[in-house]
Amino acid sequence: MNFLTGGQMKRICLGLLGCGTVGKGVVNLLEENASLLESKLGCSLFLKKIADLNLNEIKDILPKGTEFTDNPFEVTDDKEIDIVIELIGGTDIAQELIIRSINNKKNVITANKNLLAVNGSRIFEEASKNGVEIGFEASTGGAMPVIKTMRESLCGNKILETAGILNGTCNYILSKITNENISFETALYQAQKNGFAEKDPSLDINGDDTAHKLSIISSIAYGTKINFSDIYIEGITGISAEDIENARDFGYRIKLMAISKNHGDSFEARVHPTMIPYNHLLAKIDGALNAISIHGDASGEIILSGAGAGMMPTASAVVSDICDLARNISSGISSRIPSLSFMPEKLKEIPIVKISEITCKYYMRLTAKDSPGVLSKVSGILGDFGISIKSVHQKGRDENTIGVPIVMITHKAKESDIQKAVKGVGNLDDILEKPVIIRIEDEF
Amino acid sequence: MNFLTGGQMKRICLGLLGCGTVGKGVVNLLEENASLLESKLGCSLFLKKIADLNLNEIKDILPKGTEFTDNPFEVTDDKEIDIVIELIGGTDIAQELIIRSINNKKNVITANKNLLAVNGSRIFEEASKNGVEIGFEASTGGAMPVIKTMRESLCGNKILETAGILNGTCNYILSKITNENISFETALYQAQKNGFAEKDPSLDINGDDTAHKLSIISSIAYGTKINFSDIYIEGITGISAEDIENARDFGYRIKLMAISKNHGDSFEARVHPTMIPYNHLLAKIDGALNAISIHGDASGEIILSGAGAGMMPTASAVVSDICDLARNISSGISSRIPSLSFMPEKLKEIPIVKISEITCKYYMRLTAKDSPGVLSKVSGILGDFGISIKSVHQKGRDENTIGVPIVMITHKAKESDIQKAVKGVGNLDDILEKPVIIRIEDEF
Repeated sequence: MNFLTGGQMKRICLGLLGCGTVGKGVVNLLEENASLLESKLGCSLFLKKIADLNLNEIKDILPKGTEFTDNPFEVTDDKEIDIVIELIGGTDIAQELIIRSINNKKNVITANKNLLAVNGSRIFEEASKNGVEIGFEASTGGAMPVIKTMRESLCGNKILETAGILNGTCNYILSKITNENISFETALYQAQKNGFAEKDPSLDINGDDTAHKLSIISSIAYGTKINFSDIYIEGITGISAEDIENARDFGYRIKLMAISKNHGDSFEARVHPTMIPYNHLLAKIDGALNAISIHGDASGEIILSGAGAGMMPTASAVVSDICDLARNISSGISSRIPSLSFMPEKLKEIPIVKISEITCKYYMRLTAKDSPGVLSKVSGILGDFGISIKSVHQKGRDENTIGVPIVMITHKAKESDIQKAVKGVGNLDDILEKPVIIRIEDEF
Repeated sequence: MNFLTGGQMKRICLGLLGCGTVGKGVVNLLEENASLLESKLGCSLFLKKIADLNLNEIKDILPKGTEFTDNPFEVTDDKEIDIVIELIGGTDIAQELIIRSINNKKNVITANKNLLAVNGSRIFEEASKNGVEIGFEASTGGAMPVIKTMRESLCGNKILETAGILNGTCNYILSKITNENISFETALYQAQKNGFAEKDPSLDINGDDTAHKLSIISSIAYGTKINFSDIYIEGITGISAEDIENARDFGYRIKLMAISKNHGDSFEARVHPTMIPYNHLLAKIDGALNAISIHGDASGEIILSGAGAGMMPTASAVVSDICDLARNISSGISSRIPSLSFMPEKLKEIPIVKISEITCKYYMRLTAKDSPGVLSKVSGILGDFGISIKSVHQKGRDENTIGVPIVMITHKAKESDIQKAVKGVGNLDDILEKPVIIRIEDEF
């Protein structure tokens, strides 16, 4: 089976669509570690063509022998190219180019979480039909091997639960607020200044980017097609330094978590700011780092952490996919591992539990008039909905603020009950501002 | 390439050698998750034979259709068996059975770190010659995907450094001493009582087990054959609650670390108690958990953590190897990934740096007469060897102890210089006990 014996070293041809930050990282890494890669793969990787709109951008790093084009179809339609690497992003032209490459019987590698989350089913079906593979390790968690660990290392496990910090921008901002007690706005400004947030950070801070990754992770974990709009998404813009300080008092940290839980015939998939125990490893993941906790029924909890984004870490993930595909091409096989972990014919359409149906503990912060009996009224309303209070702090009045802050932790309750109770509490004359609630997950 | 199309589901035959704790876990997991595995693999796994000396041990869990034998050669020589799983342990009969299986053209899975560390080269060479594969994910880090992450996910990276907590017994004991301020002996007793240490814990606490894993990790990281006896090994029996307390004062935790560092034409490979910064993620790995930090030149630091031992976590790793091999067998290929990450002909014999040649910071604890000028004499001797002190605490005299404790942290120094200085210091009349030194690694 060793194709090397006596023969010439096989050459695998790559084509790159889009040569921005990550693309440049891939070009660099393939150049820099070319001989290392050959020593490991027993074949050589040749970057035949790069398609980008702007030659000026990359002419300094264009490898010897690599062609440049501004026409992406010269890559997708090149008969010699074995693997097309899509690093354009977005859902329009990227999808068209990926489908075209697949139909041309090319394996595809993509870091495009947005596209896979929203329209992955179609792409994976086309790939399966055409007998080619899609590598997407770089779509989720940067250099952290999330996809490979779930699909391969935990192959024999039923996945019970995953909980991830999957967006570096949000984690940077929340860490800043936590460690420096500054406002959300100041933290965001610093994130932008230091290159940890885009000029338009909305896709990150509104939770969408995290949800894209959660969609991919859940598909693989449970073997299901996902309707992206069924994922509950809440971003971090509502998080204040005050809530973070209160979380600390209760023994928690606030992280933007992507949570999935397996209920057998349904599963939870939700993204929201979450209080987690301060002594859990995930609570220690600071700055732009990413991390994920994966519970398998046999493995127990596995935690991965690493750079979730950035030029070279993401390039590392792309190259790991290149290596996997190159080994398959060298061996003359394809579709060694099903894209979504389960054989295409075994994929289900497992429903996502509605957010109103989940149960967890809740943190609630109220701003109340400094009058007697408020707490009694609040706990009465909570009681009406079967919600019991685990712990409550009524803080002293601060001269600079209106009203008196009351913060509490509930025992486990159903989300729909909490929402009704919050509405009832909010309607009290004694309550001066809309109550703030944050979900708590402390049973990792 | 889809072998399923229209045909019957392919069946992969497994044979199990040794059905102790982990073996039983594998039997359970294959039974419990059989249909899940089929959905993912597209083939079925059939445990054809179990060889163990004692049928009574396993008769309650013997799956329907699985044969039992007390003759292991009935497994190694069974023509139908595709994969032999060796879970006997030790270096004698296990090696004979593995080599025999390989010569019978069977793929082999083993959790036998001892054997692989000491005699892996021969086993991997035989496998390569016979065109079969060795799966050994379960040998290192239990359910943590250490081998797969290094061999596959970081395939495009030059590995710069690894640092691991790879022995649950030692980590349990050190955590106990750290958190409860008890003696080493009490912590060991508790570890034994709670099933975290063997009756004879020597292989764990003397560092050998950790070094076996480091040997495997280093081979894969740098593509080298390893002379196991070149690895420096120091266990945890010398660690006192006092040193752990002092470490805390300096901002460190003490962990038994397996450290490897890539110097290009040589590499470090050493196992010893190590002070690491208290705020590094590895310092938070408590109890019997394992963790490893891996630095790739592109990926940056990746950290994995999880159960490093135990029935089901180790079974999870064995089954992940079964899945990998089953996919290859189904596809009609072998040797898809070289055992030690690099193609056999590319493996080198890179020398391990002698412990005397390494440089790091050091913690030193002295017990001195309560007389003036001791510190000046000590720092004079250190100065003679070019070692400068970064920080020193001279503690008050405790009525119950002899002498006055002096603890210090040096700047970076060469090990051979430290050893000479320690000898000189120890010879001072003012020094009442043999100086204690602990290496510090704070540049993760």
